[in-house]
Amino acid sequence: MTPERLQRIKRMLNNRQTDLTVCLEDVHKTHNLSAIVRTSDAVGVHYVHAVMSSDNPLRMRTGTAKGSQNWVQVIQHDSSQSAIRALRQQKIQLLATNLSDRSVDFREIDYTQPTAIVFGQERDGISDAVLTDADAHIVIPMVGMVQSLNVSVASALVLYEAQRQRAAAGMYGTCTLPQDEQQRILFERGHP
Amino acid sequence: MTPERLQRIKRMLNNRQTDLTVCLEDVHKTHNLSAIVRTSDAVGVHYVHAVMSSDNPLRMRTGTAKGSQNWVQVIQHDSSQSAIRALRQQKIQLLATNLSDRSVDFREIDYTQPTAIVFGQERDGISDAVLTDADAHIVIPMVGMVQSLNVSVASALVLYEAQRQRAAAGMYGTCTLPQDEQQRILFERGHP
Ligand SMILES: C[S@@+](CC[C@H](N)C(=O)[O-])C[C@H]1O[C@@H](n2cnc3c(N)ncnc32)[C@H](O)[C@@H]1O
Ligand SMILES: C[S@@+](CC[C@H](N)C(=O)[O-])C[C@H]1O[C@@H](n2cnc3c(N)ncnc32)[C@H](O)[C@@H]1O
Repeated sequence: MTPERLQRIKRMLNNRQTDLTVCLEDVHKTHNLSAIVRTSDAVGVHYVHAVMSSDNPLRMRTGTAKGSQNWVQVIQHDSSQSAIRALRQQKIQLLATNLSDRSVDFREIDYTQPTAIVFGQERDGISDAVLTDADAHIVIPMVGMVQSLNVSVASALVLYEAQRQRAAAGMYGTCTLPQDEQQRILFERGHP
Repeated sequence: MTPERLQRIKRMLNNRQTDLTVCLEDVHKTHNLSAIVRTSDAVGVHYVHAVMSSDNPLRMRTGTAKGSQNWVQVIQHDSSQSAIRALRQQKIQLLATNLSDRSVDFREIDYTQPTAIVFGQERDGISDAVLTDADAHIVIPMVGMVQSLNVSVASALVLYEAQRQRAAAGMYGTCTLPQDEQQRILFERGHP
């Protein structure tokens, strides 16, 4: 491994935000998944939870995300319940991106708190069970004729608002990953 | 036309930002183009300029953008020069999204000024000619291993920063479209 590459990996590890997580509920288009994993890497999200229903089991296998899938851990779940259970093991605020009576503007949330953000399926959005369980519903304002944004666009907007707040709060630059996860990455990825 | 639909169209017209424009230089993947037009509609961008090189003339024909292509005017150019010439007819700041020595963080720009933002091709980015011509280079910060964002993600982040600044400055809610353009839209789109 070149010293430059080691430096780059160490810088990445120091910027990983272990308490900022994304959960994708049945997002199935490859280009959306790839773009979301790529954006997650860019803002320092280390774990992406992906619920994949049984009739659509192949969708994580293909697609390029510019290599970001090597750096972001995609954790697959076969049901939303199991994903939510995993997320709730950390004390997090669970945010559902959805327009409803409960929705608040996405910029009003404090993302410096431990946070998991759920994004929904391209056509149907987030399931009722998850909407009920969420601590808040957040919405990105829109002033045109179309009713929703592309899901990879919506996730980037929320994640970069979190990045902005966390950068302002000085939350980047100190490694919060467990020691063994750091070692695993340096070992597996540092030596091509 | 139902009164609700008329209301919706009028609200959209009142929020159109005629002096905020996007220019896509050889962005050719249908799902990227569609997502960018959809995001443009959502923030009130009325004109999207698209440079399409001659070896790729079909790329605007397909793809769905959830109907936003009916509400956003996509103006095609066969060269970057012709696109830039058209943009420069308005007194705008021309911003190139690109990492270089000249780059500033995208959030440091004042988007309440008349602005055109150029986004580049999926693989090669923005051409040297346009990079040289631009008034500023802007970059979205990234702290992961991957070197660039998906182009529809990058454009959404810049456009929503513009939306945030313009909303704060009270720039939404007053129609700035020419009267004949308003009439055209009401006539063509109001009566299905
Ligand atoms: C295309 S949308 C699904 C729309 C679906 N018809 C609905 O009503 O939820 C796919 C996902 O993108 C996200 N999304 C799209 N537009 C959004 C917005 N304006 N605010 C928040 N999330 C949005 C949400 O996660 C949503 O589940
Ligand atoms: C995939 S990138 C092209 C990368 C290309 N290799 C380069 O060096 O420009 C496609 C377009 O997305 C936009 N983009 C991607 N990441 C960006 C970032 N971090 N800051 C600003 N624009 C970005 C730019 O418009 C770029 O031309």
